[in-house]
Amino acid sequence: MKIHVILGSKSDMPVADKAEKILKQFSVDYEISIASAHRTPDYLKKIVEESKADVFIGVAGLSAALPGAIASHTIKPVLGVPVSGKLNFDSILSIVQMPPGIPVGALGLDRGDNAALLAVHILAISDEKLASELMDYREKMKEKVIKK
Amino acid sequence: MKIHVILGSKSDMPVADKAEKILKQFSVDYEISIASAHRTPDYLKKIVEESKADVFIGVAGLSAALPGAIASHTIKPVLGVPVSGKLNFDSILSIVQMPPGIPVGALGLDRGDNAALLAVHILAISDEKLASELMDYREKMKEKVIKK
Amino acid sequence: MKIHVILGSKSDMPVADKAEKILKQFSVDYEISIASAHRTPDYLKKIVEESKADVFIGVAGLSAALPGAIASHTIKPVLGVPVSGKLNFDSILSIVQMPPGIPVGALGLDRGDNAALLAVHILAISDEKLASELMDYREKMKEKVIKK
Amino acid sequence: MKIHVILGSKSDMPVADKAEKILKQFSVDYEISIASAHRTPDYLKKIVEESKADVFIGVAGLSAALPGAIASHTIKPVLGVPVSGKLNFDSILSIVQMPPGIPVGALGLDRGDNAALLAVHILAISDEKLASELMDYREKMKEKVIKK
Amino acid sequence: MKIHVILGSKSDMPVADKAEKILKQFSVDYEISIASAHRTPDYLKKIVEESKADVFIGVAGLSAALPGAIASHTIKPVLGVPVSGKLNFDSILSIVQMPPGIPVGALGLDRGDNAALLAVHILAISDEKLASELMDYREKMKEKVIKK
Amino acid sequence: MKIHVILGSKSDMPVADKAEKILKQFSVDYEISIASAHRTPDYLKKIVEESKADVFIGVAGLSAALPGAIASHTIKPVLGVPVSGKLNFDSILSIVQMPPGIPVGALGLDRGDNAALLAVHILAISDEKLASELMDYREKMKEKVIKK
Amino acid sequence: MKIHVILGSKSDMPVADKAEKILKQFSVDYEISIASAHRTPDYLKKIVEESKADVFIGVAGLSAALPGAIASHTIKPVLGVPVSGKLNFDSILSIVQMPPGIPVGALGLDRGDNAALLAVHILAISDEKLASELMDYREKMKEKVIKK
Amino acid sequence: MKIHVILGSKSDMPVADKAEKILKQFSVDYEISIASAHRTPDYLKKIVEESKADVFIGVAGLSAALPGAIASHTIKPVLGVPVSGKLNFDSILSIVQMPPGIPVGALGLDRGDNAALLAVHILAISDEKLASELMDYREKMKEKVIKK
Repeated sequence: MKIHVILGSKSDMPVADKAEKILKQFSVDYEISIASAHRTPDYLKKIVEESKADVFIGVAGLSAALPGAIASHTIKPVLGVPVSGKLNFDSILSIVQMPPGIPVGALGLDRGDNAALLAVHILAISDEKLASELMDYREKMKEKVIKK
Repeated sequence: MKIHVILGSKSDMPVADKAEKILKQFSVDYEISIASAHRTPDYLKKIVEESKADVFIGVAGLSAALPGAIASHTIKPVLGVPVSGKLNFDSILSIVQMPPGIPVGALGLDRGDNAALLAVHILAISDEKLASELMDYREKMKEKVIKK
Repeated sequence: MKIHVILGSKSDMPVADKAEKILKQFSVDYEISIASAHRTPDYLKKIVEESKADVFIGVAGLSAALPGAIASHTIKPVLGVPVSGKLNFDSILSIVQMPPGIPVGALGLDRGDNAALLAVHILAISDEKLASELMDYREKMKEKVIKK
Repeated sequence: MKIHVILGSKSDMPVADKAEKILKQFSVDYEISIASAHRTPDYLKKIVEESKADVFIGVAGLSAALPGAIASHTIKPVLGVPVSGKLNFDSILSIVQMPPGIPVGALGLDRGDNAALLAVHILAISDEKLASELMDYREKMKEKVIKK
Repeated sequence: MKIHVILGSKSDMPVADKAEKILKQFSVDYEISIASAHRTPDYLKKIVEESKADVFIGVAGLSAALPGAIASHTIKPVLGVPVSGKLNFDSILSIVQMPPGIPVGALGLDRGDNAALLAVHILAISDEKLASELMDYREKMKEKVIKK
Repeated sequence: MKIHVILGSKSDMPVADKAEKILKQFSVDYEISIASAHRTPDYLKKIVEESKADVFIGVAGLSAALPGAIASHTIKPVLGVPVSGKLNFDSILSIVQMPPGIPVGALGLDRGDNAALLAVHILAISDEKLASELMDYREKMKEKVIKK
Repeated sequence: MKIHVILGSKSDMPVADKAEKILKQFSVDYEISIASAHRTPDYLKKIVEESKADVFIGVAGLSAALPGAIASHTIKPVLGVPVSGKLNFDSILSIVQMPPGIPVGALGLDRGDNAALLAVHILAISDEKLASELMDYREKMKEKVIKK
Repeated sequence: MKIHVILGSKSDMPVADKAEKILKQFSVDYEISIASAHRTPDYLKKIVEESKADVFIGVAGLSAALPGAIASHTIKPVLGVPVSGKLNFDSILSIVQMPPGIPVGALGLDRGDNAALLAVHILAISDEKLASELMDYREKMKEKVIKK
């Protein structure tokens, strides 16, 4: 497995679905788990430490501590997706404003799709097949816009 | 020891100092530690689990995960103090907007003093001496305001 | 009675319901009242001063003065729950940003459930039965997350 | 006395000074008091109920409950001045977002001057001398702008 | 006529309705007009200058210039009601943050009711009948809250 | 004269200076006036109606009504520059969020320079000399960046 | 063609429709294209460089880079319309806060209508027929407000 | 070269310095360039397309279009660092809220250090020496915190 998507709560699944819809279009293994930074800190640690993933994606709303908690247990790159709610600024700022030393790359609100894509971009650095698929993906995006 | 103040970083010490200045005025044991939710998650867990405290106070800035991380490792009540920075809303929202199940009581920006006081209010529920000291403290506050 | 939930307005009842749903799961007495800091300041004072509660929870929206007004009349710990509306930041900031000397522990937007839980955590400091119930409650939360 | 300026804290005095600077230019009695909604609720109530003022001005920062607390104890019109701090939105929203039934007229951040002026406008409704002074005041303001 | 409610646009009528619902409960004349600060500046000026009102209420959304524009043409006190929209902070800040010299008393978002009430409070300073009606109004509000 | 810069207050002059610094680099007449939308509404109207300008620039802080007030008196295009202060969002939103029918083109906070430039871009549509100067200006900007 | 409206995405069409509804009322040629600053940067450049337009309008949501990207490829004046979404402040600030040297005139959230109008105001500087139509348009707006 | 740091303006250099201070501690080649998305769009495109980097870091303030513009020209992963200014939310939201299809991983305000670290984490996926250096780096961070 290459990409590990972890959700803070079952209610975040629609955002993970967006990620999965992207990942299915590329030659890349992935796995989706649910683990809460606050309710199951030890279980989260275990999942992260036992994971064979090269890139982690943490998806969480409210005081979205999950991506940062994942990053605290691994040196693999971690991406974070803030989930929308009543405030939106809570999850965005909780993920963007990580302290020095433990970085998380934040994507936009509910942008599970972009987190998946960025993970593919990262893996494509050393995977020519993925890089070629990404080139095709971009080309198709361009054509869709221009045909309109 | 009754109250355990934990800072996410040495730079948060001025806010802890405000807490200490309050705690010294009451008959209550306390301890101040530094432990980062992101840089030292296992050490933080150890400190919290080994602590004999009845109330925890977490002090942190930026995406202030510390109070929530403390709360994930204990059933003792946890209070959180957001530390001011360039945005302020990051630390406030990260502490206030805890998900259901793992509560943190948030105090105002840089309000180490109020966190310490609220901890004393909590301990005073079952400690008559503390309750009496709190009554005196309030009385003095009133007098100060009225004398002006 | 141990926990006194006070609402600023009848319209805040759904948030109090969340609190009640939690409190019913624990061996703890509670009471729910309606009293407005602005429309019935004397009545609020009377309710607070005559209450036998060990912990107060104030639930209010807009310029949510209620938790602070409760705290001004008692030395029992006071928790505050901001109620969502058109702005959300009004009730959150009104409750979080209490001035020095009169602390309120703020919970998240509409988090009546977490306020109730934090009140239980507070009472559990000196109540072993409650502490044991809390341990069970946490364990069940963990299991629910992991089973998913 | 006609206008009663009440500050929540001695530290709000610079904003009261702006009010006083305006009031001195008009034929109107005023008084400045310090009373905290949170630290001295009973004293505040006493001051408001015993006051002979026709208009109240409450000046407060943070979760600025003072103007609303004044309004809860009188049917005289109450104006509120939010005092600037680290967030600014806390005091503004706490004063602007009063619940239905107990109105407060909010002025701008630190605008003690405008609160004083609005109080004069209010008194000038039934005071021809004041109205005439206001007309002169406006005329001078215009001339100052135009001469530049 | 005593109170003149001016709307910036027909779409603001629901907020004016809230004002009217209050005003009908008191012995006070009022009038409701529509005039835009931006689309009909001269007409607005005419309306304000010819008005016999003692208090003006300006109701407007977006960059709510109306209350300030009214205030620029009269020395009668002006109250402003921000109307909710996609941002809410636009109309609130446009009304609250008036520059020195031309004050407007801002009410809460969509609080036509409180603007009407505050206008009544202002007129009641020198109108004993209105003052007595206000006392009754408050008493009924209290009873409603307490009966709950 | 082609471009008329109007300031709401003398204190906004540093932002006008930025505009002037740009305008001096182009073959374009301009004038700078001070007129307040709130303190001198009639004078502002007179200045705008008598102006021979093809483009207006309104510079204002707080509830920055000036650009909108200019636009209400002319069909020449109006640009608005929000001036920074304690909130910043007040002047930005007051200028950006103009109601339908009376447009203002908003520039960035304190961006008198960009307002001046955009005015030159507008005049250059039908002025080849200005267009050529703009091309040179852009070229020099590029070279400055690239040389670094 | 005189006015070129460019959308960042097909989903922004309702905002372009508002622009078109205005443009149809004036004697002015216009064209509407779709081109993404991020997905089709070269295509956008080509469209802008080959366009014969005198004024560009960029319509975009989220991190609305489109208007700035258009401005980077032309010296014709560029107006930007932020499209509403979950945050609103993202598109507004991305368009308003352009760096020095490359100005964009920002309109209000979803204000395709005002962008179209401002473009007409700009073209009317040197087009008497358009100016006359604008005068009529304003007159009708006034009448509509006053008749209410 | 492996990591290419691009600044939107010379004034962003202090944030790039933080990145460089981190990068010097690891066995990784890097380069720092200045190129503006708005002032030098073609030059930026050229720099990105000719770069041999595996990871790009874009550093920019205000309406920070740079990271997104870099991402529009490459399939290598792009990280973005918002630079602080008068608003802060402008650069943060401009970088975080990228539209679907062109992802950027956003770091915290002024967090050039974390962007550099995340780039190293990314390269360490397939570089054991870097991974080992990262493990050491983390270990030293932990020791520093715990020794306090």
